[in-house]
Amino acid sequence: MAKINIKPLADRVLVEPAQAETKTASGIIIPDTAKEKPQKGKIVAVGPGTKDEPMTVKVGDMVLYGKYAGTELKLDGGDFLIMRESDILAIV
Amino acid sequence: MAKINIKPLADRVLVEPAQAETKTASGIIIPDTAKEKPQKGKIVAVGPGTKDEPMTVKVGDMVLYGKYAGTELKLDGGDFLIMRESDILAIV
Amino acid sequence: MAKINIKPLADRVLVEPAQAETKTASGIIIPDTAKEKPQKGKIVAVGPGTKDEPMTVKVGDMVLYGKYAGTELKLDGGDFLIMRESDILAIV
Amino acid sequence: MAKINIKPLADRVLVEPAQAETKTASGIIIPDTAKEKPQKGKIVAVGPGTKDEPMTVKVGDMVLYGKYAGTELKLDGGDFLIMRESDILAIV
Amino acid sequence: MAKINIKPLADRVLVEPAQAETKTASGIIIPDTAKEKPQKGKIVAVGPGTKDEPMTVKVGDMVLYGKYAGTELKLDGGDFLIMRESDILAIV
Amino acid sequence: MAKINIKPLADRVLVEPAQAETKTASGIIIPDTAKEKPQKGKIVAVGPGTKDEPMTVKVGDMVLYGKYAGTELKLDGGDFLIMRESDILAIV
Amino acid sequence: MAKINIKPLADRVLVEPAQAETKTASGIIIPDTAKEKPQKGKIVAVGPGTKDEPMTVKVGDMVLYGKYAGTELKLDGGDFLIMRESDILAIV
Repeated sequence: MAKINIKPLADRVLVEPAQAETKTASGIIIPDTAKEKPQKGKIVAVGPGTKDEPMTVKVGDMVLYGKYAGTELKLDGGDFLIMRESDILAIV
Repeated sequence: MAKINIKPLADRVLVEPAQAETKTASGIIIPDTAKEKPQKGKIVAVGPGTKDEPMTVKVGDMVLYGKYAGTELKLDGGDFLIMRESDILAIV
Repeated sequence: MAKINIKPLADRVLVEPAQAETKTASGIIIPDTAKEKPQKGKIVAVGPGTKDEPMTVKVGDMVLYGKYAGTELKLDGGDFLIMRESDILAIV
Repeated sequence: MAKINIKPLADRVLVEPAQAETKTASGIIIPDTAKEKPQKGKIVAVGPGTKDEPMTVKVGDMVLYGKYAGTELKLDGGDFLIMRESDILAIV
Repeated sequence: MAKINIKPLADRVLVEPAQAETKTASGIIIPDTAKEKPQKGKIVAVGPGTKDEPMTVKVGDMVLYGKYAGTELKLDGGDFLIMRESDILAIV
Repeated sequence: MAKINIKPLADRVLVEPAQAETKTASGIIIPDTAKEKPQKGKIVAVGPGTKDEPMTVKVGDMVLYGKYAGTELKLDGGDFLIMRESDILAIV
Repeated sequence: MAKINIKPLADRVLVEPAQAETKTASGIIIPDTAKEKPQKGKIVAVGPGTKDEPMTVKVGDMVLYGKYAGTELKLDGGDFLIMRESDILAIV
């Protein structure tokens, strides 16, 4: 992953979604439109938090988040999600 | 149940839904699509709580929750739900 | 009523709905689908309350509640409702 | 009016709606379905209020309330409304 | 205007809507259904206010309010509006 | 502009919308229905503010506001808008 | 960029959207209606902030914001967006 020079504001984090599996367990290749959007990702940047919400996650954490969490961003050719920490369900 | 290595954030808990009964009282096998989604489950991981909401439930508690509570997660081949403690109705 | 071993969380209560009358005043038996959902019930379990909302009702109180209040639960073969105390309109 | 043995919870009041006029000014009898729902009633029971909202109305007050305020209750053969004090517009 | 014996609760006021003009500038009489609902009225009763919102308007003030503000009330044969002070836009 | 004798309540201001241009850059006269609603106006009256929101704008300020901000008022033959200060985007 | 003489109110900022690319990577010119609305822009004016929200961004910062953030404004022939700081996702 290329270094990302981006500073999320407030309680936001930048997440790099994990690659969705492109093969099923039985080895069948899944065409692009049938792939489930991944719900797992890696924190690549963390905002300073707010007075009420200091941040819990840190860069490098693998996290789970809801299917519709965050805003998609294209940066340096890669796809990222920027979301509030409260959209993150758990650290795995 | 395999050990789950997951840390829910804030006031969230990870719940393993109880198996829905696959036979009716009279012994008729219920096909998969007719099964009611279970509303009972076992707490398998508990978040740290928030400043305003310390956690009441603990790992191992059997809990009741609403039909549409939480977000479904597939982990290690099993299906789990991650939800806020406020979505839990009662400990049984 | 069998003893119910259930601990509602926070400001929730478990209510056993009163039986709806199955005869009209003139003695006509009402078929099941025409019965009004009862709006009266008996408190069978009370949560610990919250910091902001200590509980007012206690086990054994007969209460009135709105038609759509609470979540239905089947426990030990009986039907119960679990609802927040704020859904209870009055003690009768 | 029969004595009502009911204790509204929190900031709720029990209101006995005033009878809607069944004759128009010109003496025509209005069939039941054409009658306007009355918006005037008499307070018959008052809850204890809340920490933030002590009660202003008292038993016996005639009050005005919005057309869709409150929940209808049948008690001892009569129709009543149970509503929050904030649904009451004015004392007349 | 007849004396109105009504005590609005909390931060409510009773407003007597000003008569809508029944002639256009060029003298054409406007049929009833084409008349715009007036947005100007006179305060005829004022509630005690709330702890957070002491009242600013007083009886006799001419005020402007939004087209859909308040609840219509028929009192002593006249039409009035009861609304919260926050629905009043300005004193004219 | 005629003197306006109106006192907005709370954090409201009275705005006189700037005239929309009736010619395009190339000199074509725009018929009335094609004109964009202006988003620029002049403050002509300012309310006293609230405990939480002292007023920032003052009479005479030219301001920008959203297309759908405020309530339209006809006063002394002119069209005005009354809106909350929070609907004002900027002073120009 | 021409100097902009505009003072955003409260926690608002004025953003000059970055030009959307008018060529694809393979050099095909994109007709105007097919261009994606840019999500990147430069802060050109910053409000004073509020008691609860001091401002973090400053004039000259390049920022990312959601596709539907802010209100479009035409000023001195250019298109700008005025938005709340909370609509800004990150500084790049």
